[in-house]
Amino acid sequence: MTIFSRIVAGEIPCYKCAENDHFLAFLDIAPLAKGHTLVIPKREVDYFFDLTDQEIADMQVFAKHVAQAIQKVLPCRKVGQAVLGLEVPHAHIHLVPMQNEGDLNFANAKKSFTPEEMQQVANAIREAFEKQ
Amino acid sequence: MTIFSRIVAGEIPCYKCAENDHFLAFLDIAPLAKGHTLVIPKREVDYFFDLTDQEIADMQVFAKHVAQAIQKVLPCRKVGQAVLGLEVPHAHIHLVPMQNEGDLNFANAKKSFTPEEMQQVANAIREAFEKQ
Repeated sequence: MTIFSRIVAGEIPCYKCAENDHFLAFLDIAPLAKGHTLVIPKREVDYFFDLTDQEIADMQVFAKHVAQAIQKVLPCRKVGQAVLGLEVPHAHIHLVPMQNEGDLNFANAKKSFTPEEMQQVANAIREAFEKQ
Repeated sequence: MTIFSRIVAGEIPCYKCAENDHFLAFLDIAPLAKGHTLVIPKREVDYFFDLTDQEIADMQVFAKHVAQAIQKVLPCRKVGQAVLGLEVPHAHIHLVPMQNEGDLNFANAKKSFTPEEMQQVANAIREAFEKQ
């Protein structure tokens, strides 16, 4: 069971940003920027491109709506998106608020925020997501 | 008119990897790895998340099929995916064959291949794509 499946199961807490029957979005705990969010399928699939056509389509639409909520809460030029997938074996889309092309670089130093800041950001994204 | 719309219109050549009525895939001419491919909507839209839900879903499914073709031609651990979007104002998904997490880093030095190598790779991806 991946760490992300344990989050889905409620065994590990997360700063939840959005959820529907099939997908979950929560803050990355080693963020590149404030509001850096992960979107995952609840079904445990390692490789993003092994999702079915229907799943990958639905996940991308869900991620779009999460990205729009992020942008309402955290003003940025654009929200960038990346799927790397060689670390946690559970497909996930990174959504990262960007001011510059270099902001979507996983070699950058990770940011650190207090639990209160993380919770406040997650709550704000969730509220914006649910209002859409 | 963006440089990508000029490619769609046939005014600028590209190393074409896949095409359907709405989307086009071609090799990035400043690749991070051999087989680094761009997927674009033929409709000129700047911001990826301004695509309609239907468009973004269809584009992601198309990109998946292109990624599967890339992986057949260029053995790699996974094909990574990224959308940055602060340079060319025409939404595009990068698909990059990856051996390591660090391979999807746009600060890395770009690779250089001869026109013959580029054409050979594009032809092979296209053949794999069309066979699917």
